[in-house]
Amino acid sequence: MLPEPITALTAALGKLPGVGPRSAERIALHLVQADAPGVKLLAQVIVTARERIRLCSICGALTEADPCAICGDARRDASLICVVERPTDILSVEKANFFRGKYHVLGGKISPLNGVGPEDLRISQLEERFTTEPIREVVLALPTDVEGDATSYYLAKQLGARGVKVTRIAHGLPAGSGLDFADDLTLTRALEGRREMT
Amino acid sequence: MLPEPITALTAALGKLPGVGPRSAERIALHLVQADAPGVKLLAQVIVTARERIRLCSICGALTEADPCAICGDARRDASLICVVERPTDILSVEKANFFRGKYHVLGGKISPLNGVGPEDLRISQLEERFTTEPIREVVLALPTDVEGDATSYYLAKQLGARGVKVTRIAHGLPAGSGLDFADDLTLTRALEGRREMT
Repeated sequence: MLPEPITALTAALGKLPGVGPRSAERIALHLVQADAPGVKLLAQVIVTARERIRLCSICGALTEADPCAICGDARRDASLICVVERPTDILSVEKANFFRGKYHVLGGKISPLNGVGPEDLRISQLEERFTTEPIREVVLALPTDVEGDATSYYLAKQLGARGVKVTRIAHGLPAGSGLDFADDLTLTRALEGRREMT
Repeated sequence: MLPEPITALTAALGKLPGVGPRSAERIALHLVQADAPGVKLLAQVIVTARERIRLCSICGALTEADPCAICGDARRDASLICVVERPTDILSVEKANFFRGKYHVLGGKISPLNGVGPEDLRISQLEERFTTEPIREVVLALPTDVEGDATSYYLAKQLGARGVKVTRIAHGLPAGSGLDFADDLTLTRALEGRREMT
């Protein structure tokens, strides 16, 4: 019933994350009725963003300039590297506004079932950084699932052989949450990771 | 923290209907990491849809060809015109798959508070159609709010003076709903519109 350009647009929008068929149609109908220069501008902004954003050649972060702002920032602690799975994980850590070191994006997790081995991740690039940067501690901030665990153990072994300190961020109860909302694994890890109160 | 092209894209996406700041950021981060040809194609599809879709010069529907498929369809009952507020309302009526006449989009409702008078709507275009089309009945399918009511009464008076039959779609309980979910006005209108069972 809808003209073909609208159904084509709806289909394309429906592929975006979090956009279901109904909201895709709603956005499409909005766009074909919106003022034409504004719609052209949106299309331009999409293309520009994709063209101007690249991955930092050092850490793998999303950046316009290469190296990225964090890699190029002399005030950040170069002896501390936080290893994350995806570029957007850097944003999460930065929002917490606590970590003052640098980053390294792995680009995935070791997952034999999906055919992802260590050689598919940016691990050799991380090891290269040891030759040029005064790295003393590597903080692993990978997911707490099976693959995140496997990747963490692999890196701990691999990097530990270099004599570098390898730590992993704590697992436990999220802030503001009670025991009744915690699943068994979270609670087990929270108990394992208990600390003496001083 | 995010590079400027990403924040610009997030801001642009956040203006789309139903896209909040968080989903705008999620879509933006997806797009800058997606494969470049696919992103270019999306931008192209957006521009193409906006360029190729126009309003039908007869009824005001969203269409690629002018006149639209419904206006140009000789099998549709030309003696019956359904008046709706917006182009997308036609889709709602068509989805019900019951109405076999033609349409006319007003492009708004009479709303003195917002400075919208009858002359701002496509009413003169509707009256023009009486000179070329064998219209016998006009079905008003406008919203059931105050402005929809005012617009319906205005059109009933205006078109009634031409001797044409003017009807308004029934108001009452939605299908599959019970009395406990109906508000007072809906219930009042359902009672007013009661019909004898045969």
